[in-house]
Amino acid sequence: MTSLDVSREAGVSQSAVSRAFTPGAHISPDTRRRVLDAAERLGYQPNAIARSLVTQRSGIVALIVGELHNPFYPQALSQMAQALEARGKRALLLTHDGRRDVQETLDAARSYQIEAAVVFPTRLSSTPPSLGDPLTDGVPVLLFNRQLPGHDLLSVSCDNHAGGRLAAQLLYGSGARRLAFVGGDPDTSTHQDRLRGFAGWLAEAGVELLAAPARAFQYDWGMQATLDLHTAGLRPDGIFAANDIVALGVLDALRVLGRRVPDDVSVIGFDGIPEGARAAYRLTTIRQPLDLMIEDALEALFGPPGPATGRLHPGELVWRGTVGGAQP
Amino acid sequence: MTSLDVSREAGVSQSAVSRAFTPGAHISPDTRRRVLDAAERLGYQPNAIARSLVTQRSGIVALIVGELHNPFYPQALSQMAQALEARGKRALLLTHDGRRDVQETLDAARSYQIEAAVVFPTRLSSTPPSLGDPLTDGVPVLLFNRQLPGHDLLSVSCDNHAGGRLAAQLLYGSGARRLAFVGGDPDTSTHQDRLRGFAGWLAEAGVELLAAPARAFQYDWGMQATLDLHTAGLRPDGIFAANDIVALGVLDALRVLGRRVPDDVSVIGFDGIPEGARAAYRLTTIRQPLDLMIEDALEALFGPPGPATGRLHPGELVWRGTVGGAQP
Repeated sequence: MTSLDVSREAGVSQSAVSRAFTPGAHISPDTRRRVLDAAERLGYQPNAIARSLVTQRSGIVALIVGELHNPFYPQALSQMAQALEARGKRALLLTHDGRRDVQETLDAARSYQIEAAVVFPTRLSSTPPSLGDPLTDGVPVLLFNRQLPGHDLLSVSCDNHAGGRLAAQLLYGSGARRLAFVGGDPDTSTHQDRLRGFAGWLAEAGVELLAAPARAFQYDWGMQATLDLHTAGLRPDGIFAANDIVALGVLDALRVLGRRVPDDVSVIGFDGIPEGARAAYRLTTIRQPLDLMIEDALEALFGPPGPATGRLHPGELVWRGTVGGAQP
Repeated sequence: MTSLDVSREAGVSQSAVSRAFTPGAHISPDTRRRVLDAAERLGYQPNAIARSLVTQRSGIVALIVGELHNPFYPQALSQMAQALEARGKRALLLTHDGRRDVQETLDAARSYQIEAAVVFPTRLSSTPPSLGDPLTDGVPVLLFNRQLPGHDLLSVSCDNHAGGRLAAQLLYGSGARRLAFVGGDPDTSTHQDRLRGFAGWLAEAGVELLAAPARAFQYDWGMQATLDLHTAGLRPDGIFAANDIVALGVLDALRVLGRRVPDDVSVIGFDGIPEGARAAYRLTTIRQPLDLMIEDALEALFGPPGPATGRLHPGELVWRGTVGGAQP
């Protein structure tokens, strides 16, 4: 049973049969329906895997993801899978615990004839220098929201450094002078770049950075770090949290401590997760332009050759209720 | 270049080479390292796809997922992918918008020689009767956390009906007599089963169900439904929310309305997402035993044949601060 049989049964061309089974291909709903009906009558099932051995194009793109606790990444993953499907590709999902070498996971993915791989945030120390080659054995690899300094790797990120500078400027503008950074996992470029931007702006303005504790991109850590700062007698009046999840922990700790936001303390986060918009938080934050970043990643992987190194997208200020003063 | 060359180069058996490239296979770290080093020196790359044509076992399991807004499902997805990897399988991720026929997505997945498919929650009306056959063309299909009444389909769910009864019993036990259900998407079995259990228990106790508005499993809807109930002059003193995300919206609406929880109103949710534990909410809820459900799903798909129809796991009460009275 071949696609030729189906094309005869359906009264359409053989290429129409092929398009009917290719997600995202241009074909009228009516023609697709006729092909699918004919295929069902004949018991025809296209074999994407056998086809991939002939065409050398499996249509499979590996998505290598770490922990999905930060809701920003499930959202990114889901949107990326949909964007791939719209281009006729499929997502092979591989998890990565963030501690092993990412290369191992990538090697496992390569045995599935993948066309490309997207690596979602991993620790810098688990990303080996060998990943620095943008085309490993012909398979393009792109880092999503991680930079690997000193390498020509394909990557698409939010401009975390500029975001850190913006956070400093906004907290300073609210009148805060006792400023703290509550970091995330210090072994990540997002943490490092945001801190560098924040500390750099403050240094230029001649303002001391009170403290910059760091551990994990987690709610519990944001809460604990804030309680610890107050136990140590450092009472910040402005806090930049390394991401929104950490910021929610910071806000809940301030609630427990009886410190009013933004009257006593201003707080700003990073990411733009939906949770931050809720009535219990109303978090002011710097939103990552996820749609643009995903579109750009697919362009970098499948579009015409262009500048290979890190593409940066500026974050967008989302002004809500946790930073004092007038909206800039 | 074959696995035999690699086995000679590494000084190990050919089956050790095979195991070194099979995720989850038993092999010592030292042997795996020697094989991988030898393979790298020789430029050997195992081809899982070519192998799958010979063995008829691709190792690929399709995960068909709908929207990932409810954080319960990204977590389930991530844990499922990890559990599959531990069994030497890989997850092919396919998104489904919840409106089209799930069969179309499943057909697309089948062209990748999948060994099995897991369908995450979809609307009842988008799940066609043809899915009712537990083995479609030899590929087992399992519904995760959805029941399809009247079919012998493989499925693993939380016992939503019993959970609904428990919610009614707890709210009644807190002294509440003006009871409302704030539903989710009414076209889902989770919504329907939870409501049926809740309303059934109340009917047996001779308590009227004040209202049961339903629309979507979303925070904004939980908020709006609660505001609407109060605008309509129905002031419930006990609310069962169809899931935790809806419950958080209910709690924030009550905050805005100035009604104290649990003094004026008791609230209980369903799922057990981490967000509900936060200081701003302290939501009492019925937790789905995710680890058990995933293990059971993989047993049903890959273990020895057993009872095919829906396996139900009782939810676990998580007692926090939003239901009045003594902990049962």
